[in-house]
Amino acid sequence: MSVKAEQRSVSEVSVIQIMPSWSSGPSKTAILTFIDEVCKEGGESYVRPEDRIAVFDNDGTLWAEQPIYFQALYAFDRVKEMAPQHPEWKEREPFRSVLAGDLKKALSGGEKSLLEIVKVTHSGMTTEEFAASVRKWIDSAKHPQTGVPIKEMVYQPMLELLDTMRKWGFKTYIVSGGGIDFMRVFSEEVYGIPPEQVIGSSVEVKFELRDGVPVIVREPKVGFIDDKEGKPVGIHTHIGKRPIAAFGNSDGDLQMLQWTAAGDGKRLCVYIHHTDAEREWAYDRDSHIGKLDKGLDEAKAKGWTVVDMKEEWNKIFK
Amino acid sequence: MSVKAEQRSVSEVSVIQIMPSWSSGPSKTAILTFIDEVCKEGGESYVRPEDRIAVFDNDGTLWAEQPIYFQALYAFDRVKEMAPQHPEWKEREPFRSVLAGDLKKALSGGEKSLLEIVKVTHSGMTTEEFAASVRKWIDSAKHPQTGVPIKEMVYQPMLELLDTMRKWGFKTYIVSGGGIDFMRVFSEEVYGIPPEQVIGSSVEVKFELRDGVPVIVREPKVGFIDDKEGKPVGIHTHIGKRPIAAFGNSDGDLQMLQWTAAGDGKRLCVYIHHTDAEREWAYDRDSHIGKLDKGLDEAKAKGWTVVDMKEEWNKIFK
Ligand SMILES: [Ca+2]
Ligand SMILES: [Ca+2]
Repeated sequence: MSVKAEQRSVSEVSVIQIMPSWSSGPSKTAILTFIDEVCKEGGESYVRPEDRIAVFDNDGTLWAEQPIYFQALYAFDRVKEMAPQHPEWKEREPFRSVLAGDLKKALSGGEKSLLEIVKVTHSGMTTEEFAASVRKWIDSAKHPQTGVPIKEMVYQPMLELLDTMRKWGFKTYIVSGGGIDFMRVFSEEVYGIPPEQVIGSSVEVKFELRDGVPVIVREPKVGFIDDKEGKPVGIHTHIGKRPIAAFGNSDGDLQMLQWTAAGDGKRLCVYIHHTDAEREWAYDRDSHIGKLDKGLDEAKAKGWTVVDMKEEWNKIFK
Repeated sequence: MSVKAEQRSVSEVSVIQIMPSWSSGPSKTAILTFIDEVCKEGGESYVRPEDRIAVFDNDGTLWAEQPIYFQALYAFDRVKEMAPQHPEWKEREPFRSVLAGDLKKALSGGEKSLLEIVKVTHSGMTTEEFAASVRKWIDSAKHPQTGVPIKEMVYQPMLELLDTMRKWGFKTYIVSGGGIDFMRVFSEEVYGIPPEQVIGSSVEVKFELRDGVPVIVREPKVGFIDDKEGKPVGIHTHIGKRPIAAFGNSDGDLQMLQWTAAGDGKRLCVYIHHTDAEREWAYDRDSHIGKLDKGLDEAKAKGWTVVDMKEEWNKIFK
């Protein structure tokens, strides 16, 4: 896509036509003003297209994350699928509870239980076998409460935002605590973001020759954790440039927003605030998932953009 | 750049005009035939532009690597620069020998000595301080034997190849045992490859707030080693797709070429063979740097392309 062709001022275009699922309000104005200023050639806030890096958290920012991270749903389905080969799981937590359908109990051990489940269900196979397994799952999985296909539980306003930013020459990245190889399977189809622009957590992988055939094998060892302090590190490792715009929804994104904000020139830092209990879920400071507490305070103190989903999004899901 | 505009057959264009520093010969034919076949819409070997991933080793493939890796020259210069703050180095190998100008002795401890030097000289600073240091060095450093600026010790035929492949819609990546943050400083200027398309070895980095200012700090700990089995792993981590073309010059690239070759459809695996003792350096099976032994055997056995620099490149340096 030629950026040149898009070099009119944002303000020349009706803002109602751009990102129609965003109601007029402070967030839409802040976002469009930012895009306008960094893209205006000759303007004092101009940023070259190659430096227009925008990073997006995934769970709770691009798609929903309640009542539990969708990748955990995949892990639970894998436990059931793998159970016949693991008779010992009938006696062993957290697997026993997953198999009994008692997810609350399965996760009572907190993050440690979830990590244990992820480690076992996401390893012991080649990268290609894993991708095929995720592909099969994502094409049929439905949300446990809404019954909507998982890959339609994405936020329409964010799809419009991604598209708008790309039209204005931004390179859009996912930077998520979720699994990098999990998200890469559907990131292009669902968000228009190619695999090489997905940054996430990983298990360790190992190259080997199996009967002369080279494979990359997923090990049952946690590799990189792309959360909190890990997010700026993941960005540095994969992109090697500091983003000029960052979007998140929880305290896990705070360091990414701080790192983005601290660069020279105009910056855009945005928190998606889950305020709509009717059309989605309302949660922040006390949530077991996507807790937004310190981040909300810092956003207020620093004048970052906080999107009120209930007030500012006239449509939520795709 | 629009790929569409380039969708004529390679054979319609005079092959003498394309990549003029390549003499007519088996390598040029193999490369242009490959590009032609994977880009021909409707052809049985057609590959979509988003899957046209080409990976290039750096030292000895894109620029020279004799008498020693250029990054080691940077490390030695850093040792001299840092010496006043490290009086203990006068008594401690390998630093003592570096300061005495005896590089042969400094490196007599092999890779371990070099790693020790790199660890110390490439850490203990923020990522931005490191980039500024490399920038200053690369803009003035000269080759110890030729006296030519280091950043002109690049192979003109490879620059033409990179450019040609990009014109045909390929995304070109560096995949090197060299430091990722070292190469990223000059990869765009020297090769037209942006930082986010550079994969390399790294030290561990850590995010922290210093008096409220977020920084990423380089630690004196080896992180990822992007060599041998590490190359397919680095490719998987950063790109998440299997390349369809790979270029290297040593046994350190063998696994990358194997991984590339083993994918479905048409593949291009190329070794640059250093055969020109007059215009460059001639070395392969017994070299202390860029050893090409197993790789040469496997290339012959599998029919990969081996570029005879002396015979097939009518110009070597930029
Ligand atoms: Ca989140
Ligand atoms: Ca090499």
